[in-house]
Amino acid sequence: MAAADPVPEGALVLIAGAGRLPMLVADSLNRARRPFRLIALRGFTDRSLRARADATVDLLDLAATLKLLRRWGPAVVVPAGGVARPSPAAIFNAAAALRNRETLRAIAGGGDDRLLRAALALVEEEGHRVLGVHEAAPDLLCPEGRLGGLGPDQAAAASIRTGRGVLAALSPYDLGQAVAVSGDRVLAVEGPEGTDRMLSRARALGRKPFGLGRALPATVLVKAPKLGQDLRVDLPAVGPRTVRNAARAGCVGLALEAGGTLVIDRAATAVEADRLGLFVVGYGAAP
Amino acid sequence: MAAADPVPEGALVLIAGAGRLPMLVADSLNRARRPFRLIALRGFTDRSLRARADATVDLLDLAATLKLLRRWGPAVVVPAGGVARPSPAAIFNAAAALRNRETLRAIAGGGDDRLLRAALALVEEEGHRVLGVHEAAPDLLCPEGRLGGLGPDQAAAASIRTGRGVLAALSPYDLGQAVAVSGDRVLAVEGPEGTDRMLSRARALGRKPFGLGRALPATVLVKAPKLGQDLRVDLPAVGPRTVRNAARAGCVGLALEAGGTLVIDRAATAVEADRLGLFVVGYGAAP
Repeated sequence: MAAADPVPEGALVLIAGAGRLPMLVADSLNRARRPFRLIALRGFTDRSLRARADATVDLLDLAATLKLLRRWGPAVVVPAGGVARPSPAAIFNAAAALRNRETLRAIAGGGDDRLLRAALALVEEEGHRVLGVHEAAPDLLCPEGRLGGLGPDQAAAASIRTGRGVLAALSPYDLGQAVAVSGDRVLAVEGPEGTDRMLSRARALGRKPFGLGRALPATVLVKAPKLGQDLRVDLPAVGPRTVRNAARAGCVGLALEAGGTLVIDRAATAVEADRLGLFVVGYGAAP
Repeated sequence: MAAADPVPEGALVLIAGAGRLPMLVADSLNRARRPFRLIALRGFTDRSLRARADATVDLLDLAATLKLLRRWGPAVVVPAGGVARPSPAAIFNAAAALRNRETLRAIAGGGDDRLLRAALALVEEEGHRVLGVHEAAPDLLCPEGRLGGLGPDQAAAASIRTGRGVLAALSPYDLGQAVAVSGDRVLAVEGPEGTDRMLSRARALGRKPFGLGRALPATVLVKAPKLGQDLRVDLPAVGPRTVRNAARAGCVGLALEAGGTLVIDRAATAVEADRLGLFVVGYGAAP
């Protein structure tokens, strides 16, 4: 999970979903002097990137995407950025045009990721290779050590150990990419609702216990991918907004698995952390 | 945890907090022809029980409680029913009159239970014995097998196994008495916010994924005490309201650790489960 393979030969195709990430990946590829083609997704890809696209397709038109890849391929495909939440049922229906409906229903019954994973499997069945952002642009991942000027004190380090233990214990199950830990007490475990909502739960809880205010041990957000998680589909990510939300939830810092967590805009994240007095630290994955 | 010790000799003193539980314990003791004295907590004990109290004390007046126990004791003390959430800081201050403030601060820094556990330790230091409801009234615990007419189907049984696995994995940590599992997907892990809020989270999530409605595997609520949890202080509990909340969250049933979960009003719980088409089943603790 940590060290990325070198990007293999073959036309590299970046499929750009929503948000800043596709732009950051494009910049990273440019820095690495790696030429690539860009597929924009209508309604998702950021305007600044749309102008640079080699082609624009509908998210739901998998057939069109496959046709493009076939023309350029065998290609190395890098999906980046958010896509689906708007209308997942529509994605399902689109995929059903290409694949057995019952199989898809079984796939959809499981975790959030499976539908996207199934789409990527379709791409791979056609002889292309799918790489994650963590492989195509490894410089976007959290490194080991501090990102800003601050580091965890002894109490926070203990909370980080507890959080890592909880995440490791939950790793075999389909949940749990983040926890909020106060002292040795776990305030919240992230489910499918995402880190931001988990943090607002921690915030609500952090206010209550015992009315002791400052005596309540400082809270730390700990974040890591699941064991065996397909990072091409779901790479844990943080950014300046995560730092702000963590600060609002009463956190003193963020601990991220190095090489397994994406930092959206590392410089801005570090600046925001320093401004708000939080640490952001990358820890080595368990051996 | 499962089989209760026989209630030891000595005056049995029931300290009645809020809610129906103290009344249910009193009834259970009467059925077992076990005489007891009743201490009502001003502002907490239900009116119907207050009339039967041998004494009424303030929750925060630990000294008065200890004086009563000394007069009747060495006593076997059974605390039952909710007490504290209104003003925990006040409890802290009251306890601080009897015990070193710094010690208490350290206690309060940990889990919710520790303050109450510290109060019980004070009672035990005076030579009394503290029993949990599970020991004094074991007939109130969930038995093995079905409580109502329904049982889990194969899919629900698989979800129960997943849920039990998650709870076992989280057991060493200070959280997690319940999980909501849909298929092999964990929708929510209970933190200090309690089962009801965890269920409403599961409800919100259960609505979303893929818009597939019926294709989404049925959700099961699984509930168990933590390993080594002090059941005198915090006994997982369900009742008719839990069944209603679980139904609203889209659950098909509840799976409870037999002997480790309290069922508030077993008959009403079973009736409510049958009415709403949910199963309630007690499973044996892991060996």
